[in-house]
Formats: sequence, C-alpha cells, structure tokens
Amino acid sequence: MSTLLSSFDARTGHVLGQVAATAPDALDAICREAAASFGAWQASPGAQRAALLRALADALGAEREPLVALADRETALGAVRLNGELDRTTFQLRRFADIAERGVPFAVVDDPAVPGAPPAGHPSMQRWSVPLGPVAMFSASNFPFAFSVLGGDTASALAAGCPVVVKAHSAHLLLSRAVYSLVQRVLAEQGLPAGLVGMVQGGGKEVGVALVRHPAIAAGAFTGSTQGGAALAAEAAARPRPIPFYGELGSINPVIALPAELGAHGASLAATLAGSITLGCGQFCTNPGLIVLVDHAAAEGDTRAVNDAFVDQLAEALRPLEPHAMLTRTMRAAFDAGVAHWAEAGAEWRLHAEAPVDQPPRPVLAQVSADQFIAHPALREEVFGPGSLVVRAANLAQALQVLQAVGGSLTVTLWGAQQPTDEVRSLVRATMAFAGRVLFAGVPTGVAVTAAQQHGGPWPSSTRPESTSVGDAALARFLRPVCLQDAPQWLVGRGGRPL
Amino acid sequence: MSTLLSSFDARTGHVLGQVAATAPDALDAICREAAASFGAWQASPGAQRAALLRALADALGAEREPLVALADRETALGAVRLNGELDRTTFQLRRFADIAERGVPFAVVDDPAVPGAPPAGHPSMQRWSVPLGPVAMFSASNFPFAFSVLGGDTASALAAGCPVVVKAHSAHLLLSRAVYSLVQRVLAEQGLPAGLVGMVQGGGKEVGVALVRHPAIAAGAFTGSTQGGAALAAEAAARPRPIPFYGELGSINPVIALPAELGAHGASLAATLAGSITLGCGQFCTNPGLIVLVDHAAAEGDTRAVNDAFVDQLAEALRPLEPHAMLTRTMRAAFDAGVAHWAEAGAEWRLHAEAPVDQPPRPVLAQVSADQFIAHPALREEVFGPGSLVVRAANLAQALQVLQAVGGSLTVTLWGAQQPTDEVRSLVRATMAFAGRVLFAGVPTGVAVTAAQQHGGPWPSSTRPESTSVGDAALARFLRPVCLQDAPQWLVGRGGRPL
Repeated sequence: MSTLLSSFDARTGHVLGQVAATAPDALDAICREAAASFGAWQASPGAQRAALLRALADALGAEREPLVALADRETALGAVRLNGELDRTTFQLRRFADIAERGVPFAVVDDPAVPGAPPAGHPSMQRWSVPLGPVAMFSASNFPFAFSVLGGDTASALAAGCPVVVKAHSAHLLLSRAVYSLVQRVLAEQGLPAGLVGMVQGGGKEVGVALVRHPAIAAGAFTGSTQGGAALAAEAAARPRPIPFYGELGSINPVIALPAELGAHGASLAATLAGSITLGCGQFCTNPGLIVLVDHAAAEGDTRAVNDAFVDQLAEALRPLEPHAMLTRTMRAAFDAGVAHWAEAGAEWRLHAEAPVDQPPRPVLAQVSADQFIAHPALREEVFGPGSLVVRAANLAQALQVLQAVGGSLTVTLWGAQQPTDEVRSLVRATMAFAGRVLFAGVPTGVAVTAAQQHGGPWPSSTRPESTSVGDAALARFLRPVCLQDAPQWLVGRGGRPL
Repeated sequence: MSTLLSSFDARTGHVLGQVAATAPDALDAICREAAASFGAWQASPGAQRAALLRALADALGAEREPLVALADRETALGAVRLNGELDRTTFQLRRFADIAERGVPFAVVDDPAVPGAPPAGHPSMQRWSVPLGPVAMFSASNFPFAFSVLGGDTASALAAGCPVVVKAHSAHLLLSRAVYSLVQRVLAEQGLPAGLVGMVQGGGKEVGVALVRHPAIAAGAFTGSTQGGAALAAEAAARPRPIPFYGELGSINPVIALPAELGAHGASLAATLAGSITLGCGQFCTNPGLIVLVDHAAAEGDTRAVNDAFVDQLAEALRPLEPHAMLTRTMRAAFDAGVAHWAEAGAEWRLHAEAPVDQPPRPVLAQVSADQFIAHPALREEVFGPGSLVVRAANLAQALQVLQAVGGSLTVTLWGAQQPTDEVRSLVRATMAFAGRVLFAGVPTGVAVTAAQQHGGPWPSSTRPESTSVGDAALARFLRPVCLQDAPQWLVGRGGRPL
C-alpha cells in the first residue's frame, strides 16, 4: 500500500486531490531508467537537445491557461505572477536550447602536440567535457514553474546531456503531475525514452534521501531551505561514491543603505523596498530580509535622524500593502514563529499587525541594534515571508561585523556607492566577499536569466558558491572535463561530443 | 616545548636534521597573517603577480644545485629526475605568471542592460571572479618540487590572488625549509608581506586538521593518499562554514591493452610499460597499477595466447630493472604489505623477488582473473611502488565490470582504439566516464602542463573531479564568480580586478 499525499488549495486549505508517494522499488526503477537513457542522450547532438527543449517550451506555452489556473490554486501566487513565471520558464528552456545548439557543452580546448622534452614538449591533448549522468533535481516550493519540473535545473541538465529525476515539491503536486504529463508527451513525440525525465513524490524526507543515495544518481540540484539542503548535501558527501550537490539554500539578502542616499531618495527607496519585501508574499530566495543602516558615517557624522526617517518611511510604505496567501499553512505558521523569534531576541516592532493563521500575513518590520544582531544567532536565520529586520550599525566597522555574522548570502544590495570614498571601497570589498550578486541599485528580487548572472553565494546561501543555478553558467554544473591524449582521428572528429 | 620532527636520508635512513613541529598558537598566527595579506594581494594587478611568480622561478633556478642535492638526500629520486622536476616547477611558475599577466583571473562576462520587461529585459550585469582567500596547501611526498612548497597549487593560488599556507611534507622537511627561505627572501625583495606564503610542519594529522579547520582558511588543495585526503575533505565539509577541498587522491590508472595491439607491438609496449611501472620507483599518482587484458575479443576470438605472451614479455622487461630507494621507510614497508594483499586475495605471481626492507624494492607483477578482482575490494587499492596487477577479463563486458569495480581514476590508457569498432566505442565510452585523462598511446606517467590537461578524475581518484590540479585550469579552483548589477563606473573601470 502506498502513502497518499494531498494537494491543498493555498487560499482555503481545502484538499484539491491526492497523489501516491513513490515507493522504494518504483524510485529504484525510475533511477535505473534515467541511467539507461544516459548513454544515448550524452551522445546526442546539440540540435537534438535544442529540439527537445524548444518543444517543451512550446508545450508549456500551449497549455498556459490550465497550468496557470492549477498553479494558482495550489500556490495562491496569482495569475499575473504565474504567467510571468511561465514566460521566464519557457525563456530559460529556449535559452538553454540555443546554448546546446551553439555547441557550448561540446567546447574543446585543443593543445596540438609540441615536439621536444617536457615541460615544454607534450603529446596531442584535447580537453572535452562529459555530462555527469542522471541529476536528482529538487523542486522549490516558491517557483512552481521556474524552479520546478521544467525549471532552470532541468533545462540546464538536459542541455548538458544529463537525464533528470525530479523530486516534485509537495506544495504543488497536481501541477507537477500535469507538467510531467506534458514532458512525457513531448518525449514520446520526439522518440526519446520516457526515462530521460523521471519524477518522484514524497511527503517526508525519505524519498529525497533515497534519491540522493541511489547509485545511478550522479549529481544533485536543490533549491530550498538551509536545513533541508545541508542534510541532503551531507547525504551526497557520505555516499560510497560522493557526488556533487548543488544546493541553493536560505539567504537573508542584506540591503546596506548609506545615509546620503536615503537623505536624497528616502521616500522612493522606501516604496521600492516595501514592494520587494512583500512581493510574492515575501516568498523569494532573494527577499530582502535585513536592512543595514549606518548611524555614524565617515563623511556625514551623526546620521541617525535620516535613518530614523527612512525606517518611518519604510513602515508607512509597508503598512497599506496586502500580501496574498502564503504557499502553505506550514509556511504561514513558520512566518509567525520567525518574527516572534525576532521579538524574543529583543527586536523592537516598527510595524506589526497580528493576522489569523488562516489568513495572509501582514507586513512586518522590526529593528535591532548591531550589537543585538551580532549577539543573537537566531536573528540571522531566514524568515520566509513579508518581513524585514532593520539593523542599526553605529558605524561602518559595525556594518561590516553584521555581514561577517551572517556569513554569506545570494545577494547584497548597496545603495550609495556612486563615489569611491574609502568607506565605500571597504563596503564594496566586504560585499563582494559576502555574496554571489552585489546590487548597486534597485532591489534583489528578480533574478535575470543572463550570461553574467550568479545565483549562488558563500555559505549558508549555497553549498557550492562557485556555481550558479540561474543563468548560462548553470550548465557547467553538470559537466566534467576529460583530457584525451593522442586520441585517434575518428574520435577527434566528433568535435567534443561524447560517444 | 615543541615536538621535533626528523628528516631522514632516504637511502640510508640516517637522520639528516630536525625541524620543530608547528605549535597551535604559531599555526593560528600564520593563518592570521595569511588572511591579513589577502586584501592587498586580491587587489594586485596581473603584472605584480607575474613579477612575484617569475622571481620565485628565477630564485629556484639560481639555487638549483644545492636544492637538488638536498632533495636527492631526502627523497632518493636522483639528480636527473629532480633536475627535470625543478625545470617543470619553474615552467609552472612562469606559466601561471603569464596567465596572471594576460588577465585571466580578471576575466569579465559583460551583459549590458537590455531595456524592457523580464525575462528578456534586464539591468546591467557583469560577472567577475573573486579569489577565495588563504589556501591550505598540502604538499605531496613524491614531488618535492612540483607538488610542494612552490608547486602547481601554490603557483595557481598566488596567480588567482590567494595567499597560501603550505603544510610541508614530512618526507622532505629540510628541502621545504630551504625553499621556504627562498620564498621569504623573494617576498621581502618585492616588498610583499611575509604572510602571503606561510608554512607549517607536523608529524601526525593534528597540524593538517588544525589547518583545514582554521577559520581564516578558505580552500584546501591536497595531493596524497585517498585515506588522508578523504579525512581532510570531511573536515573541510564539517566546518561551521564549509570550504572547498580539492584533493587529488590515490589512483590505480588502468591500462587496457587490446589483443590486436599486443600482437603487433607487444615487445615494445612491454618495454615501455615496464619503464612506466618502475619510473621513480613507481611513486607516481599516475603509475599504471592495473593492466586489463581481454581474453575473448569480438573480432579476434580467443586471444589468450597473445595476452599470455604479453604478460611474459612484461615480466621479462621488468625483471632486470632496478628501482631506486623509496621515499621513506614507511612507504617501503607499505609496498611489501600491498603486494602481500594481492597474494592473499589469490593473485598469482608473475614476477616477485623479495628484497630486504632496508633496500629498494624489486619490480612485482601479479595476475588475477576479473572474477577474482571484482570479488576482492583489497585488489582495487593503490599499491604505491613498482608493482602492477594484471587482470584477465574473459571478454569486453568483464573488462567494463573491472572499470566499474574500480570506480574512477586519474587516468586510463587504452591501447588499440585506432578503429571505431563497436567494441572500441564501448570501451572509449566507459573510459571517458571513468577517468580524468584517457590516453590512446604511451603511458600515463608524465603529466604535461598545458591548457588541455585534466589531472583529477572521478572518486576515489579525487574529491572534486570537475577540477584539475595540473594545467591552466588549476587556477579556477581558487576563484568564485560574483555578479555586479548596476555597478558604478569607478568599479566597472577596474576591469574585473577586485578591490
């Protein structure tokens, strides 16, 4: 007898349907089928990979209406956001199609033979890349399209030549099943094996752990909490044969707002920031969870007044905003618990209206001193939802200590760095050591899919800060270099495409 | 009171001198000094890094005679080999100087702003790389120049903008101290802080573990045994803030010799292979420790006779060779123990002459069936020294099972792949999945320093098979990407060079 998992309407909590959890023998079969499909797929030309990715994008686009409607019921993210997310998802699929077609996965570094004794002389050498094998892909709750069944991890893994086994997220089970049906239809239409993209479901952690432990799995890709990602990364490292585990984990995304900037543009920055804090009910990995204000800046002296004014402006900008329902009841309860921890650690409310747990949360703003923040590790934990914590640093040195206490983040935003004063230079140096992406304007929500994007920062924001889960470089996670020495002509003639 | 570590003459076992083990507070101070030097060094221009690396190469070259003489006493590797290794080491230093000067560490991926809504529209984004910070560098026993104080790890880390703390290898303590003095002299001449390159010594594992655990250390680079490397990699992963640990571990480097090739060129291949097995007394990470012969090939039918003949040729080629003394007495004893394990697991001697443990070992050749090899995990372990194990596979499928049982290797050599028969294609596919470097001619000893080199293969041969410890790509290990969004012009103008 298999366990049944329920899908819930995110707004009402009503059960929308049920899906069977994947039993151990079924998981084993799915992983074996992925492995069986690997040989042919790793040898596939770029045009074939591109054709699959484009067909998947087309199919997603063609079923937009029913998929968005279903996603909206399961996530409450709203049609506007979900349509935009679907656009982003098809954009990613097509972008990785182009990347595969351009031959990026088959790039070769060629060192023709150099006669003579080493170290200058050497045989003919070519550096190719080979795909790692089946990738275990853990969907995120908060991006039911873009970080789920057909999200960036799947698109980049397929483009790299790797099969994928998706762990569906329990917060959108029916949507995952619908998208997976679409995938299977496209695979059949293209004459590709069903096992090239597999999917498993599970409620607790057992199914995910079994997936990472399966001998056929060659890499993991994960988007979710620090706790969950760290546990799976440890499983990946403890295997008889360890595998890379690319985990994009929790992040509090500090915004460091220098007083001169706030003095000049405080009201508009407060409005922009309030929008970012509450966007998608704050359920973004790049949600700005920490706002660092410097009360004694080098040039301006005592800047408490302008900072106080900004906190007031921000509270006022947040007050009228009405976040939509959260993705799940569990996350809704976790938000209340998270902001309660802020108060327990001595934070002062700047905006705090209780809301019943069966209704969407209200925006929350709290404030602590840098001393308090550094003294209480609980204040550094990501609180997923529409809340943000203001930290008042006495001076630049304390602001840097705040970053050090956090450790690492996907993003950090630095407002007011237009002129390279000594203070600004110190801050820029510290932020570049601290985050995967440093913004000098705007807000961190919104992660562009570009060649230069870096979505992955130092611990605790990711398990592999040298990799990115968004943007063109995401492909490189699933390739490994191999040097061919004195390779025969028939092999060289494949131009970097594995056999 | 500090513990004293002894340096031994590798040929006689006599004590050459003593060096104090690094005490915990001294280790802490050395790591802090490395961290203190990081800020300026990460911001250094390529020309400055190149000037340091070239001055280090010049200094090594200028002190060639005394350094080679000292190295020879501590390692018994002989003047010819050690002079060649010193040439390789200065070549590496100069190559990474060129790489830094060309601006490779400062490469920028530029995505100018694209107006419009996402996903196509996006802000201005630049992808830079930042150095990770102080690198803990674990020297290898078997390359007292090229994988030691001024070896490839140090050269690539310095070129990347990272300080280095060397863990000196206990098998060449006096040489390490001499090279380290030279480093300090060059640093002083260039006006650079002494802490940019630190060094620690220790006998057991305590000093190495303390080094990897130190909060100032940002990455590890290691060349040595699977056991030692795996233990340090686990320490790196278990830190409060995990760091990447690039371990190049044990490897048995299979040679798969197809019968047609042996029939045509058996005698010369046997001579070449015998030379590779005994080169440097077999003390290479690319030493060919496994020779896989296929007794029933697809085209040729029963090929046992030609394989038998090759094993005889190889034994005869090995018999007269006289390996020099091993690096240490411990390694000498480990070699005898390793080949004894072969016999315990049922291997048949094809060449085995006992030698007293205070004398150099004699070449060893043993043979097992593939069934035996697959059944006995002990047979897959690296035996460091001038011995090799022949595995007789009944057919191609068994040869592939042998590779699967081993798991991964730095190299695999495939003789006889000139024509792309089905059998050859299967083998090439399997070897590319199995190793970091696949050779189609020659022998795996000798690792060229080129752009295409890949020295790092699937587990258990390395902890990070996506990285290489030899060749130009070694630099990338010590860099992490950072995306700058809407960066001010003064920062963009630095052209990718960190502040």
